[in-house]
Amino acid sequence: MKFDKILLSHGSGGRLSQDLIQDIFLKDFGNEILDELNDSAVLDFSVPSVPSVPSGPSCLSCSRLSFTTDAYVVSPIFFPGGDIGRLSVCGTVNDLSMMGAKPLYLSVSFIIEEGLGIEELKAISRSIKEAADEAGVKIVCGDTKVVGKGMADRVFITTSGVGLIPDGIDISPRRICPGDSVIISGSIGDHGIAILSQREGLGFSSSLVSDAAPLNHLVASMLDEVGNDIHALRDPTRGGLATTLNEFAGRSNLSIKIYEDRIPVQDNVRAVCELLGFDPLYIANEGKLVAIVRNEVKDRVLALMRKHPLGINSAIIGEVVEKPEGLVCLITRIGGIRVVDMIAGEQLPRIC
Amino acid sequence: MKFDKILLSHGSGGRLSQDLIQDIFLKDFGNEILDELNDSAVLDFSVPSVPSVPSGPSCLSCSRLSFTTDAYVVSPIFFPGGDIGRLSVCGTVNDLSMMGAKPLYLSVSFIIEEGLGIEELKAISRSIKEAADEAGVKIVCGDTKVVGKGMADRVFITTSGVGLIPDGIDISPRRICPGDSVIISGSIGDHGIAILSQREGLGFSSSLVSDAAPLNHLVASMLDEVGNDIHALRDPTRGGLATTLNEFAGRSNLSIKIYEDRIPVQDNVRAVCELLGFDPLYIANEGKLVAIVRNEVKDRVLALMRKHPLGINSAIIGEVVEKPEGLVCLITRIGGIRVVDMIAGEQLPRIC
Repeated sequence: MKFDKILLSHGSGGRLSQDLIQDIFLKDFGNEILDELNDSAVLDFSVPSVPSVPSGPSCLSCSRLSFTTDAYVVSPIFFPGGDIGRLSVCGTVNDLSMMGAKPLYLSVSFIIEEGLGIEELKAISRSIKEAADEAGVKIVCGDTKVVGKGMADRVFITTSGVGLIPDGIDISPRRICPGDSVIISGSIGDHGIAILSQREGLGFSSSLVSDAAPLNHLVASMLDEVGNDIHALRDPTRGGLATTLNEFAGRSNLSIKIYEDRIPVQDNVRAVCELLGFDPLYIANEGKLVAIVRNEVKDRVLALMRKHPLGINSAIIGEVVEKPEGLVCLITRIGGIRVVDMIAGEQLPRIC
Repeated sequence: MKFDKILLSHGSGGRLSQDLIQDIFLKDFGNEILDELNDSAVLDFSVPSVPSVPSGPSCLSCSRLSFTTDAYVVSPIFFPGGDIGRLSVCGTVNDLSMMGAKPLYLSVSFIIEEGLGIEELKAISRSIKEAADEAGVKIVCGDTKVVGKGMADRVFITTSGVGLIPDGIDISPRRICPGDSVIISGSIGDHGIAILSQREGLGFSSSLVSDAAPLNHLVASMLDEVGNDIHALRDPTRGGLATTLNEFAGRSNLSIKIYEDRIPVQDNVRAVCELLGFDPLYIANEGKLVAIVRNEVKDRVLALMRKHPLGINSAIIGEVVEKPEGLVCLITRIGGIRVVDMIAGEQLPRIC
């Protein structure tokens, strides 16, 4: 580690986060499931690596669950288009969905700062309930801790989730091939810019709304249509589209070429980005997915996605090529080529 | 709700916590799994209430998983006998074990305050690894968020876990019967008093050590020996033995009678309690379990528990009787009877 103390950037989802995970957590905890570093872990109850259970069942033996966790520390806790409660459900539902799983059960764990208004907590609780209903998942366990005034920032929520991966479905960056198409399910940067504008009290906040939404139904319809012709899925949250595509390029050891003029960005998001010097490629989304699909099915998948309320603005934004290995290249509007790197730190802290 | 703001006592595990859960969370999220309010949720993949999975597997259909979550906010993060890392693994492993499950997989989610020392984080990470190895569980997913200086208290950890419940095993407070015996696996109050003495800089802290330990192997050997003759299990954490027994009495609508002179309390823990006016019955434990077992097997279970390193000081401390319904009664050393109520708030905040 190059640092002796934790910096805000260690939580960015960018390169410093990855260093922290590699140098500490993976070194200590590493195993064949964790090392995959997917949006959720795949628990395969059919492989012998599962420790044997004394007098246990033999019949979990043919299926796989996905399991994931995320802490939510967004500030402010209420923002246009949602709140920390909605975010905490959507994020975890989406992490399960990105492995092709059907999300079923969620846990919700609260760390509350003394003094939080009961009405605020009730509003957050209702949001959680509504988002869970929207996704069709049940909240089956939880925990509540309270810490003293000044020991937290109002409320933090950690959700974990369990989903069932249909037999035969195998969604993983390892399956990305040259020739595959890259599809995004809508405009990028909405969530991060909505949070920023709310936080900074920018005048145009009314038109900027977080995209936080559960993507499981969209994913289910995609899987129903083309199954494993979807090779990889990910929701570009912290670190934005750029980080997700870099992860894909790195994991597959291939190159991803995207076209600037095909990437949907809302005008108001673009305006804020230009004003403040942000690049929307790095801004968090909470209701979008990137799909890497077999080239032959791209038009069918796109048509299907555009019929779904959460995929109306879906677009094919690029393709997978062999070289330069591990890199993401952006073809700019004027035809130039720019390497889209991972950022070291982050542009916006605490957006999720 | 009688309050308009969250108080520290809402996180106590006592009556105020229960009010919060009932009035807000259960009202919003309530379902047949959550409403059980057990240490972990039982996910039964054999019942039709599991939403159908499109083109999904049919063969998860004969088994049950347990699923649980807990947030850890203990202060200080390092204490005699452990640290927040060890605690976060043991607590979640134990919650799974108390449903008779074999813990298999854990998620670990960090909320870190900017400025935490990397060496401290490394030490916590190693503790997590060691406790996970001790319990025989794998860490399969995680998350890391960083919040600004002053927005958290060094580090909070939320762990969730998944375990497999062996076929036929049914451990639940609903199964408690009149005549059952109450067994505790060792001395009470060790964890809470170790934290307190560390926090307050009491001189005798060296001899006070947290009992944080994973109880899954102890539980497995008990289940192997007498199976469902164990009716209920719980680890008396926040709120201590008194709260756990009150939950049992309330859920079974029976009465639990315990004998003061049979309850193991270490001398140094008793000394601190007497000095500071605490009742060890309400102090948190992190490596103890309470078992309600069929009277006929109590001696066999006790003998077995005493052979296990984590159960050497196990004792039969009472029995289940019919009346007074829903109450816990303590037979004092001098033969008096005292009703052991739940406390409204808590004696010690942030002990777990």
